[in-house]
Amino acid sequence: MFFASDNAGPAHPKVMEALNAANDGYASGYGADAGMGRVRDMVRDVFEAPEAAVYLVATGTAANVLTLATLANPWETIFCSPMAHIHEDECNAPEFFTGGAKLTLVDTVDAKITARGLQRAIEKEQTRGVHGPQRGPVSITQATEKGTVYTAAELHVLTDVARRYGLKAHMDGARFTNALVALGCSAAEMTWKAGIDAVSFGGTKNGLLGVEACIFFDPSVGLEFELRRKRGAHLFSKHRFLSAQMEAYLTDDLWLTMARQANDACAHLISGLEHVPDVQVLFAPQSNLVFFDAPRSLHQKALAAGAVYYVTSGDPDSGPADERLTGRLVCDWSTDHAAIDRFIAHLKG
Amino acid sequence: MFFASDNAGPAHPKVMEALNAANDGYASGYGADAGMGRVRDMVRDVFEAPEAAVYLVATGTAANVLTLATLANPWETIFCSPMAHIHEDECNAPEFFTGGAKLTLVDTVDAKITARGLQRAIEKEQTRGVHGPQRGPVSITQATEKGTVYTAAELHVLTDVARRYGLKAHMDGARFTNALVALGCSAAEMTWKAGIDAVSFGGTKNGLLGVEACIFFDPSVGLEFELRRKRGAHLFSKHRFLSAQMEAYLTDDLWLTMARQANDACAHLISGLEHVPDVQVLFAPQSNLVFFDAPRSLHQKALAAGAVYYVTSGDPDSGPADERLTGRLVCDWSTDHAAIDRFIAHLKG
Amino acid sequence: MFFASDNAGPAHPKVMEALNAANDGYASGYGADAGMGRVRDMVRDVFEAPEAAVYLVATGTAANVLTLATLANPWETIFCSPMAHIHEDECNAPEFFTGGAKLTLVDTVDAKITARGLQRAIEKEQTRGVHGPQRGPVSITQATEKGTVYTAAELHVLTDVARRYGLKAHMDGARFTNALVALGCSAAEMTWKAGIDAVSFGGTKNGLLGVEACIFFDPSVGLEFELRRKRGAHLFSKHRFLSAQMEAYLTDDLWLTMARQANDACAHLISGLEHVPDVQVLFAPQSNLVFFDAPRSLHQKALAAGAVYYVTSGDPDSGPADERLTGRLVCDWSTDHAAIDRFIAHLKG
Amino acid sequence: MFFASDNAGPAHPKVMEALNAANDGYASGYGADAGMGRVRDMVRDVFEAPEAAVYLVATGTAANVLTLATLANPWETIFCSPMAHIHEDECNAPEFFTGGAKLTLVDTVDAKITARGLQRAIEKEQTRGVHGPQRGPVSITQATEKGTVYTAAELHVLTDVARRYGLKAHMDGARFTNALVALGCSAAEMTWKAGIDAVSFGGTKNGLLGVEACIFFDPSVGLEFELRRKRGAHLFSKHRFLSAQMEAYLTDDLWLTMARQANDACAHLISGLEHVPDVQVLFAPQSNLVFFDAPRSLHQKALAAGAVYYVTSGDPDSGPADERLTGRLVCDWSTDHAAIDRFIAHLKG
Repeated sequence: MFFASDNAGPAHPKVMEALNAANDGYASGYGADAGMGRVRDMVRDVFEAPEAAVYLVATGTAANVLTLATLANPWETIFCSPMAHIHEDECNAPEFFTGGAKLTLVDTVDAKITARGLQRAIEKEQTRGVHGPQRGPVSITQATEKGTVYTAAELHVLTDVARRYGLKAHMDGARFTNALVALGCSAAEMTWKAGIDAVSFGGTKNGLLGVEACIFFDPSVGLEFELRRKRGAHLFSKHRFLSAQMEAYLTDDLWLTMARQANDACAHLISGLEHVPDVQVLFAPQSNLVFFDAPRSLHQKALAAGAVYYVTSGDPDSGPADERLTGRLVCDWSTDHAAIDRFIAHLKG
Repeated sequence: MFFASDNAGPAHPKVMEALNAANDGYASGYGADAGMGRVRDMVRDVFEAPEAAVYLVATGTAANVLTLATLANPWETIFCSPMAHIHEDECNAPEFFTGGAKLTLVDTVDAKITARGLQRAIEKEQTRGVHGPQRGPVSITQATEKGTVYTAAELHVLTDVARRYGLKAHMDGARFTNALVALGCSAAEMTWKAGIDAVSFGGTKNGLLGVEACIFFDPSVGLEFELRRKRGAHLFSKHRFLSAQMEAYLTDDLWLTMARQANDACAHLISGLEHVPDVQVLFAPQSNLVFFDAPRSLHQKALAAGAVYYVTSGDPDSGPADERLTGRLVCDWSTDHAAIDRFIAHLKG
Repeated sequence: MFFASDNAGPAHPKVMEALNAANDGYASGYGADAGMGRVRDMVRDVFEAPEAAVYLVATGTAANVLTLATLANPWETIFCSPMAHIHEDECNAPEFFTGGAKLTLVDTVDAKITARGLQRAIEKEQTRGVHGPQRGPVSITQATEKGTVYTAAELHVLTDVARRYGLKAHMDGARFTNALVALGCSAAEMTWKAGIDAVSFGGTKNGLLGVEACIFFDPSVGLEFELRRKRGAHLFSKHRFLSAQMEAYLTDDLWLTMARQANDACAHLISGLEHVPDVQVLFAPQSNLVFFDAPRSLHQKALAAGAVYYVTSGDPDSGPADERLTGRLVCDWSTDHAAIDRFIAHLKG
Repeated sequence: MFFASDNAGPAHPKVMEALNAANDGYASGYGADAGMGRVRDMVRDVFEAPEAAVYLVATGTAANVLTLATLANPWETIFCSPMAHIHEDECNAPEFFTGGAKLTLVDTVDAKITARGLQRAIEKEQTRGVHGPQRGPVSITQATEKGTVYTAAELHVLTDVARRYGLKAHMDGARFTNALVALGCSAAEMTWKAGIDAVSFGGTKNGLLGVEACIFFDPSVGLEFELRRKRGAHLFSKHRFLSAQMEAYLTDDLWLTMARQANDACAHLISGLEHVPDVQVLFAPQSNLVFFDAPRSLHQKALAAGAVYYVTSGDPDSGPADERLTGRLVCDWSTDHAAIDRFIAHLKG
């Protein structure tokens, strides 16, 4: 009954196999390994973007902040949701890597930036000449931090707003594949065809040990990114171990399979939650995580029974028994449906 | 009929006199001038703070960001109002000088941070271990960007909240003296006695050419500030010209006299506005600036008659005649009551 | 007998006059004052550069670091002399404002970067792909920190080396005019005609209270500079007081006259030093400052007699009487020839 | 015949085993995994430092710059060798992570900082009050970038110099273990007992996939380091995979065994080189890498025969056949003695 995070689960056996296979003799370092050549080709294929610049880093925060720093000037502000990982969970890394850019928080519905909110936020910035921050890129999390998913059409509308002001669009795709399989569209349709300029294409939360790709559809910023990665201390000497993970990920649709397993588990979980009296599912989750409301007493019961997850809106241990608290449940490729059933049974019981 | 800004007005003749007098032969530079010794003593006297560290810089933004950078770590967030100058009008200088700290916006009433809003904002940060920004200092603008003034008691309540979480309090006093004469209290009562740790003590908006003092009641951070000032390129070689301005400012209560003149002019202006049909005074201004609402047509009439001020909520030149727009009027020590009367007459006429 | 620094002397009376005259009623702030329009035209005229972007700041360090930050990326290294002000006397401001660029020190003769040294230094950098710093702009101090002056031809050779590698050239002209009158060439010949891309055009050391112009011959970087200036807290609200100084400076050749006076005084001083037994003039000074070697006892005699200057290579107060120490003497427009004569007499006597 | 780098070789099978074993079910992330508890204890044991703060990151540059940023203020300068990795091979990462600190290059003999050079360098800095950079920590690479090793006594002398000025000492131990086994002393003797305050304890070049420990003997800076690591995007969610590597490394002396194998291979290589006519071994290598001088023609022969290594002082492919060029040869735990023999045979033949 472990639902705490999709980055607490195991790597897929095929990924471990690939890692073991890569550990064979000498290999050029720093991204010059043969595996990286294959990964580049595979990513370009998957995204139908034969010119895209493709790089690997080992953490999701690194992917986000190196990519954003390449898109944003220090005197600009990045538009994002108030729940964005870059705002809430990166300890000022975006501000650090951009050299001091700001984040402007945009209104959301179901954790998704609204076009109207985005336009209003953009309109409010850069109205005082050089005195205020200048307008910078938009960062969109797909799937969102609340488990919801933008449709390709919704993405299009947002990037259209951005483009009207000459702004670039970044996708924080820590859960890219969970969104992709939820939508059933192609990677191209969910990114550059929808107006996205650069993607943090996550793997860590979806069965890798720790690899994310940074993808720029305009490859002209490639060298700048490479210098930023190196000076950010994020260029790996034994880079083949990153390449091997990503190669396994994209081989035989493993990435899609794992995301589907995670999403299916979550759908099973949600359908269970919907039958628990006194529980309310929040937002409209479509990927691999779900937030729900329940009385403190119910959380206590589940946690006491051994369920592991975060209660995000208060202390589950102390307070009135009937106070409603929010819990977050996350599934990954390895989540066991039987564990879900036990968890639901505990909540019901 | 010039009400555009208090930093567009002239310096006081006594300040110019002092500047001319300071231009006499050789003087040690970089703050080692004799004048700075006198200024330090005068500031300490005025603030009843015999140990305070006192430094001069030439712009209000420099005063704010160097002071805040001394109080805040790069991984922290600074609590301030959504209308704070540091948020809206410093082009990411706080983020730059702190090395990437964030600003967290706090709820306000009449442009003043509320204790409840502050507590809520503080409680929401630093709840995720090292993942999110850590809690940093509170920055309070006195008088506020909307012309309102915190009472000493209100300041006390805010700094008490901050102190409960171990946080420091900074005062952006670009219009410090306007607030002080509005309250009729002492500089000590409005600062360290109310729990303030450091002050940007403005002079530029109140009759100087360009000087602000940075005051730390705990002088142990003095050397760090000095190094930050130098590396920020804000240490003046011919420092005596800064000292001379501040010395004149604090001599014979010139600072208080000028602020009183500005506030009196503004009070005259407000009382005039209150008698103009269709005009609504916003917030509850007590210092030297006032925001007001009026139909576009009225703004057009005033501007056409030669009044100079900012319409802050839209384009006065185009749009429906009856759409209500906000204007900002600012007085300084030199504002002419006759010009105010003419302005009011134009609005009425 | 004050020879400590050219930024410890008085401003010229005509500058004070202009400052007083500028203090007249209201004026637009932040560089939108009418005076700035005139200054821009005058600078463009003087430099025969009708398209140049021209900005004012108040300190020499600000001029250098804002200009360099506009020319250099954070992952680059700036080539400069080991005696460069940006290396020795700006407390890491270049590193701060560029976001972390390095300085690479180049061999010099008489404090002037040599073409061979520059080429060797450039060749040594950027030889390890993304691993090492990338090559950035060259910064040349004219006149140098030791009082020597590059000829226009020497500048040309250096910028040719830079250009061969695609690098820009910056001139730290804190003592620009002292060099200019020493060479007797035009401002254009000493800058863009010699391959310089951007200039810190100093005024503070040459009779102003505190103003330097930043000049870019390629104006396309203008907006970036403006944003950097604002976020560096170096944009003055009462900007007219900067404009007034620079306007007076460039009116009726005041800048040239003052620099000639300073250089003439220094020439007088040097010719005096050359007749003092036991004194050796260092480098080959051509502008307004001179370094000299003398036994400690001689320094002690001069200092005891009331001379004010820096002994830069040791403690004049303690040590063997015959140990040779270096002193630095600086003249400005106001240096009194009689004082020079008295100083020489003390050394001789 | 692969001698290009010790970070191009394979990870040790026992490390892969540990990695595979760690991939078992769910584990807390971000350093809260059980493995990290064990690693912390093991490192403390090995260093005889029961209070030390111990953290893991994945790249050597990250270890260096996060550790140095914790020790150095932005206005300081870090003393290091001109061949230091932090100076030559980290693309300004130290400047970036410290917020703009400088590096001051210190004289060396055999790539080792000399005490006299260090004292002279320290004495030259911080002589101009707030104008120049302030003195910061000393960074010592052990083993050096040229394969030489400081004795414990030499380290002691250097840290004594530093301590006399109140400065901290950092050890860049990318090849820590190679130095340790060369000296035959304990980790404590080579670090805190010799006056070292913090260590980048490398594993990547010595048989891991990519893990380095950052060790602070004064644990009071621990939280600051943790926040710097997170905001540097260097905190791993699936941290157990870092822990597992380090745990295997320190189990059953694997780290020492691998370093001994690398050093032994290198000793074998050196003794071979010493018998090649026309080859000169440079410096006095004691660990796992060696620089040597040979005519271009000899390099060409070796490279043509399939040897892989860097010629660091020129282009091996074009130029006079008898021009002497420097080559760098690096061994790791897996270097084959037979390959060394073949390589030497090619050089001789």
